Amino acid sequence: MTLPSVSPVETGRATHLRALIDGKAKPLGALGRVEDLAVRLGQIAGARPPTYDKALLLVFAGDHGLTSEGVSAYPSSVTQAMVATFLAGKASANAFARAVGAELRVVDAGVDGELASHPDLLREKIRRGTRNAAVEPALTADEVTRALEAGARLARDAAAEGFEILALGEMGIGNTASAALIMHRLAAAPLVDCVGRGAGHDDEGLAHKLAVLERAAARSDASPPLDVLAQFGGLEIAMMTGAMIGAASVRMPVLVDGFIVSAAALTAIRLRPEVREYGIFCHRSAELGHQRMLAALEVEPLLDLGLRLGEGTGALLALPIVRAASRLLGEVASLEDVLSGRL
Amino acid sequence: MTLPSVSPVETGRATHLRALIDGKAKPLGALGRVEDLAVRLGQIAGARPPTYDKALLLVFAGDHGLTSEGVSAYPSSVTQAMVATFLAGKASANAFARAVGAELRVVDAGVDGELASHPDLLREKIRRGTRNAAVEPALTADEVTRALEAGARLARDAAAEGFEILALGEMGIGNTASAALIMHRLAAAPLVDCVGRGAGHDDEGLAHKLAVLERAAARSDASPPLDVLAQFGGLEIAMMTGAMIGAASVRMPVLVDGFIVSAAALTAIRLRPEVREYGIFCHRSAELGHQRMLAALEVEPLLDLGLRLGEGTGALLALPIVRAASRLLGEVASLEDVLSGRL
Repeated sequence: MTLPSVSPVETGRATHLRALIDGKAKPLGALGRVEDLAVRLGQIAGARPPTYDKALLLVFAGDHGLTSEGVSAYPSSVTQAMVATFLAGKASANAFARAVGAELRVVDAGVDGELASHPDLLREKIRRGTRNAAVEPALTADEVTRALEAGARLARDAAAEGFEILALGEMGIGNTASAALIMHRLAAAPLVDCVGRGAGHDDEGLAHKLAVLERAAARSDASPPLDVLAQFGGLEIAMMTGAMIGAASVRMPVLVDGFIVSAAALTAIRLRPEVREYGIFCHRSAELGHQRMLAALEVEPLLDLGLRLGEGTGALLALPIVRAASRLLGEVASLEDVLSGRL
Repeated sequence: MTLPSVSPVETGRATHLRALIDGKAKPLGALGRVEDLAVRLGQIAGARPPTYDKALLLVFAGDHGLTSEGVSAYPSSVTQAMVATFLAGKASANAFARAVGAELRVVDAGVDGELASHPDLLREKIRRGTRNAAVEPALTADEVTRALEAGARLARDAAAEGFEILALGEMGIGNTASAALIMHRLAAAPLVDCVGRGAGHDDEGLAHKLAVLERAAARSDASPPLDVLAQFGGLEIAMMTGAMIGAASVRMPVLVDGFIVSAAALTAIRLRPEVREYGIFCHRSAELGHQRMLAALEVEPLLDLGLRLGEGTGALLALPIVRAASRLLGEVASLEDVLSGRL
């Protein structure tokens, strides 16, 4: 596999960046977590990072063989219907993208259906949905590799096109099931702690989902990240994993949305630990398991708004905070300049 | 006094708005607090509220006679220096305003100095700073009235100019002291629970600040909101109180920043209870007392980022969430349309 290499962020710049921020015209530490974020952006991009005005949300779509076991409250066909909704500009993520000034494109990573061309659709389908992970590996090793490589390429293409920051979102009926299995295996968490209501299970549905996932988990004790992706899927998660590595390889920060994208981030970090500091964890999802996944990743997200939609909606709402943090570094006067009247 | 009247928001629309949101192409409740916000915007402006692209931050500046008692870690002169910084576009609030796409103007409510004209400066000075509230009333009843009326006028002018939402911010050395006294009196909270480190007190400075405020509080048992403003100031707080009422009177939502602006919001709500539902409480400040003030107001803010700068910085970071909530109402397809292919 030819995944790009990732350089660590410049942690050595922290002292200089802290001093720069402490010298700004404001009380020490008065911008709280925005200051921490500014330090990280500076470690990624230097003391004058870009404004991140040019932001791209990629919504990775894929279907899951596991849905045939009834792990989702919605039928698989909803994935394709929602792709059409994104392309019509009428999903929540489209509305949010317009609200914050980001471009949105959809990636067909593995939708179970043939999609017509569209200028905002990136056709990267590896196969029509994953296999049923309850009875067999969801993907072959080759399919995982191709998904990772495609994701990395898409992220690097976005940077080459001039995008300054990449937000990751997803749409895939059944993908909380894959994400739960990945978390279970890569964060060594009991499955019951990883499984939530997804798009809307009641208690009975939740119990059934857990039973199916226990069956899938019992089928394989895979723990290396590539094997875990092959065993449990999904294609959109593998492709986002690659995208995160690809973005980090060109020093582009990545906005991590909720539970599913965090599973991809966890996988990316297991593959390339240097990726971690390029990831900005945007919000704490209401999906059970996300809280514990964030704890396993040792990250504190920016927002806590009770979101559990996916699509990148939480990532988009955090984007303006990143932009503000960047401008703090580059555009705010020092207290010294203010007090001496040199503005 | 001629403060405008405020109509209550259309609470009767809640059922319709909830049904509209529940019918969108997403799982029920999956956008969490953004959905609640959308309901409120709909109660203010109908099922198709504006995009809130046209947003104005007014930063109200004023000085405080209380600073002669050493209640602030910074000298009063910093207020005027920061006004110059805002007008030069180099304060944190300017950087954040550019990041989120809002216009910023400064209101001289009562800076202790003569300010040169500037296109972004609204000259509404009532007097050069308040009197020392530790020894005498900070303002006369007439000064309070004029400040309130000016604030209401500015908010209504902003709406007439085409702004769709008003963010309130402030700059005034010593104003956490006034805000603490207002909270103490209007929220009936013990003074010790209202007093924080402001711009940067150590333990000794904090104890001194508390002792000064106890002296000020002992001087008067005023509790009607207008009397409280007169006793304890400040001019920027009084003018923001008027601005909040003025905005609500023309059904314009108001983004409430941190501790000081919340004290103005509390005062406005005591004067005109209908104002409450026009206020969007943007963040939980790190300033001690804000948590309790928000509890007294029975509101849960959108963000919790450890901010304690003021200037409207927290309000600006919440603005994109409001914009997203509004677009959820107006721009997202229904699940029915998605599933039937009518996009």
